[in-house]
Amino acid sequence: MLNLRQLSTASADFESEFQRVLHWSAETDAGIETRVAEILADVKARGDAALLAYTARFDHLAVDSVAALELSREELKAAFEAISPAQRSALQAAAERVRLYHERQKQHSGLSWSYRDADGTLLGQKVTPLDRVGIYVPGGKAAYPSSVLMNAIPAQVAGVPEIIMVVPTPRGEKNPLVLAAAYVAGVGRAFTVGGAQAVAALAYGTATIPRVDKITGPGNAYVASAKKHVFGQVGIDMIAGPSEILVLADGTTPPDWVAMDLFSQAEHDELAQSILLCPDAGYIAQVAEAIERLLPSMPRAAVIRASLEGRGALIQTRSMDEACEISNRIAPEHLEVSSFDPQRWAPLLRHAGAIFLGAFTSESLGDYCAGPNHVLPTSGTARFSSPLGVYDFQKRSSLIEVSEAGAQKLGPIAAELAYGEGLQAHARAAELRLKP
Amino acid sequence: MLNLRQLSTASADFESEFQRVLHWSAETDAGIETRVAEILADVKARGDAALLAYTARFDHLAVDSVAALELSREELKAAFEAISPAQRSALQAAAERVRLYHERQKQHSGLSWSYRDADGTLLGQKVTPLDRVGIYVPGGKAAYPSSVLMNAIPAQVAGVPEIIMVVPTPRGEKNPLVLAAAYVAGVGRAFTVGGAQAVAALAYGTATIPRVDKITGPGNAYVASAKKHVFGQVGIDMIAGPSEILVLADGTTPPDWVAMDLFSQAEHDELAQSILLCPDAGYIAQVAEAIERLLPSMPRAAVIRASLEGRGALIQTRSMDEACEISNRIAPEHLEVSSFDPQRWAPLLRHAGAIFLGAFTSESLGDYCAGPNHVLPTSGTARFSSPLGVYDFQKRSSLIEVSEAGAQKLGPIAAELAYGEGLQAHARAAELRLKP
Repeated sequence: MLNLRQLSTASADFESEFQRVLHWSAETDAGIETRVAEILADVKARGDAALLAYTARFDHLAVDSVAALELSREELKAAFEAISPAQRSALQAAAERVRLYHERQKQHSGLSWSYRDADGTLLGQKVTPLDRVGIYVPGGKAAYPSSVLMNAIPAQVAGVPEIIMVVPTPRGEKNPLVLAAAYVAGVGRAFTVGGAQAVAALAYGTATIPRVDKITGPGNAYVASAKKHVFGQVGIDMIAGPSEILVLADGTTPPDWVAMDLFSQAEHDELAQSILLCPDAGYIAQVAEAIERLLPSMPRAAVIRASLEGRGALIQTRSMDEACEISNRIAPEHLEVSSFDPQRWAPLLRHAGAIFLGAFTSESLGDYCAGPNHVLPTSGTARFSSPLGVYDFQKRSSLIEVSEAGAQKLGPIAAELAYGEGLQAHARAAELRLKP
Repeated sequence: MLNLRQLSTASADFESEFQRVLHWSAETDAGIETRVAEILADVKARGDAALLAYTARFDHLAVDSVAALELSREELKAAFEAISPAQRSALQAAAERVRLYHERQKQHSGLSWSYRDADGTLLGQKVTPLDRVGIYVPGGKAAYPSSVLMNAIPAQVAGVPEIIMVVPTPRGEKNPLVLAAAYVAGVGRAFTVGGAQAVAALAYGTATIPRVDKITGPGNAYVASAKKHVFGQVGIDMIAGPSEILVLADGTTPPDWVAMDLFSQAEHDELAQSILLCPDAGYIAQVAEAIERLLPSMPRAAVIRASLEGRGALIQTRSMDEACEISNRIAPEHLEVSSFDPQRWAPLLRHAGAIFLGAFTSESLGDYCAGPNHVLPTSGTARFSSPLGVYDFQKRSSLIEVSEAGAQKLGPIAAELAYGEGLQAHARAAELRLKP
C-alpha cells in the first residue's frame, strides 16, 4: 500500500499541508563549497596538470595529457554507427524536431532590429551568438543523451561557432548513446572530464581546453556549486533543483495515463515531485487506484515509491479555476493540462516551465522529441525564468547612431539630467555636440 | 601633468601592458559576505522588526513601523511638481523615448508565438510578464534618477503589474529627482530602505513589503553580495562592476569631443575605465592635449584624474581593423565608434553592451535619453550578457499540444530514447497514447 498524501483545498488545514508539500530548500553544504573553491583555484593556477590529477583521483582515469582525454569526431561518429538502427533514427528524428523548434524560436526572438527617428537617428539592437560555449553532461546513472541534444542544438541554432562538451567517464567507461548524441548534435570538441575541475577548465581555460563564454548543463552538487562560483566570469544557465510535474486534470483522461505521467517524473529520483490537482474526487480515487496497480510493474518502482511518498500529493480542488490558481502558486517545471478543453485553461496559467496541453501530450513526448527544450526552470523559478533556448546562446548590444539633428534635440535633455546628477562631463559631452 | 598610459600594438611588450590595463577583479570581501548573510537571515526570520532595526542602525532613520517608511504616490507627485520646469520636461522627454524604444524591443523579442505541424500538433512559446519586481535605487552620492527610469520603464512595458522601489534615505534625506523619476516612471510603491536588509525584504517578503520575483538595480558591495546570495530564490540582474568606455576613433571627430567622452566615464568613480583605440598617432596626441587642457575645468577633476591614471589608456593600433579586434577582446560596456563611416566598422564589433555610432553619438546621450537602456554588462561580461531590457521582466513557457496523430508519430521515438536512458515510465507514458 502506497502512502500517498491526499489534500483538499476545502480542508481547514489545507494551507499548512500545502506548504509542507512545497517545502524544499537547496541546502548548501559548506564542505562541498570549500572543496569546490579549492579545486577551482587549483585548476585556475595549474591548468592541465591539476585537471589530470583530479581526473585520476575522482574518476580513476589516469592518462599523461589532457589531449588523451579528448574524444575525436571520429570516435563520436563510430559510437553513432555502433548503436542500433532504431536508436540512430530516434536520435536523428528527435534532433531534427528540436532543431526546427529552435529555429522558429530564433525567428521570433533572436534577430537584430533597428529603426530610425524622423531626424535620422538610428536605434536598435544587434543580436549575436556567443563565441564559445561549454556543455556539461553528467556521467554515471544520470547520463542522458537527450540532454546533449537539448543543450547543443539551441547553441548551434544560435550560431555559436564552438561547442565544447565535457562528460566524466569514470574508469574510462563511455556511454555510447551520449557520444552518439554528441555526434548528431554537432558537438565540435568533447573531453572526458567532469566535476568541479571540468567547470574550472571551461571557465578559466587550460593549455588544452579553451575558455568558454557560457557553461550550461546539469550536474551533481559539486558541479552546481562550481557553476555558481564561476558565474560572472562566464555565463551559466540556471542551477537546477529536483524535477517536478504538476498534472491539472478535469477527469477526462484515462487514469492510467495520468498515473504513468506522475511516475515518469517520480522515477528520476527520490526528490522529484509529482502532484495531481483535480476537482473530481472520484477521478482522484481512480488515479490512486491506477498508481497502486501499476507501480509493482515498474522497474524503478522503489525510486517512484520513495518520490511519491516523500514529495508527491493528490490535491482535490473546488474547481478547475482554483486548480489553475494553485498551479500559478507552484510555478511548476512541467505542467500537464489533462483536459478535454485545455485551451480553456491555458490563458489562466501564468507560471510554468513548459505547458503540456491535452490528454495526448504526455510530458515524456516533450522530454524527448516534441521540439521544445527539456531544460526548464525548477523549484518555482518559472516565476522569473525561462526554458533553455536560443536566446541563452545569444547576447544583445544596443545600437545608437544619433544624427546631427538628433544631437540638437537630445543634447539639452541629457545635459539637464546630467547636471541634476552632478555629472558635468556627461553634460558637457552632450553640449559639445550642439551647434553654436 | 596627467600620467596617462600610452600603448602601441606595435610594441614588443604590448600584450603584457594590455593585460595590466584590463586586469580588474571583483575582490569578494569575506567580512562583507558574513555580515550580509546575517542580515539576510535576520530579515527572513524577523521581517519588519529586523528591517526597522537595520534602518535605524545603518541609515540613522528610526521610525515605529515599516509603513512609515513607505513613500506615498502623492509624495512622489509632490516631488515631481517641486523640481524645476526644465528638469520636469527633461525627465518626461527621457522617459518617453526610453518607453518607445522598449516598446519596439517588446515587439521584436517579447511576444508569444506558436505554430502547428501538419498533424495538428501545436508548438510554441508563451511570453508573460513577471508578477512583481523590486528596483533597488542607491541613495547618497550615486543617486541617479535616470536609473529609476531605466529600471522601471522596461518592467512597465513588459507588463509587470507591481513595481516596488527601495531607496535608502540616510537621516531621512530624500533626493527629489529620484522621487520625481519614480513618479514619471510609474513606480507603484516605494520604501525608503536600503542595503542588504532591503534586498532581503524584497526577496523574502515581510508583513509590509511584499516578496518580489526579481530584483534589479545597482548598489554598493553589501547590496551586490545580498543580490548574489538571494539569486535562485528570486531573479536578479547582473552584478555590475565599474563602468567602462572604449572609444574607437579614426581621427575625424573633434579631439575635444573624444576627451570629454573619456571624462564622462572617468567621472563616475576612480575605478571606472576609459580607453581610446586609434590608428593615428597624431590624433592620439591631439586627444592627449585636449585631456590636459580640459581637465582643470572639470568640477570632478580629481576623480577623473584618478580614474584615467589608474585605469585609462590611449592605445595606438596598426589599423581600424585591429582596433575592432582589440575591442572584441575587451567586450566593453560602452563602445563609441567615433568614425566618419561607423557603419563600416559596426559589423566587425561582436561584443559590447551598447555601440554608439558616429561623432554625434556621445555616450551621455545614450545614458539619459536616446532610448536604449543604460544598464549594461560590465567587466567583459558583454561576451555573454545583454543590456537590461523588457526580456528581463518577462519569462517564457513552452507550449506543446500533441494531437492524437502526433502522439502516434512521436510516441515510438520518445519510447526508444527513454528505454535507452533507463526511464521506463517515460517510455510507457508515451506508449499508452499509441493506438492498439
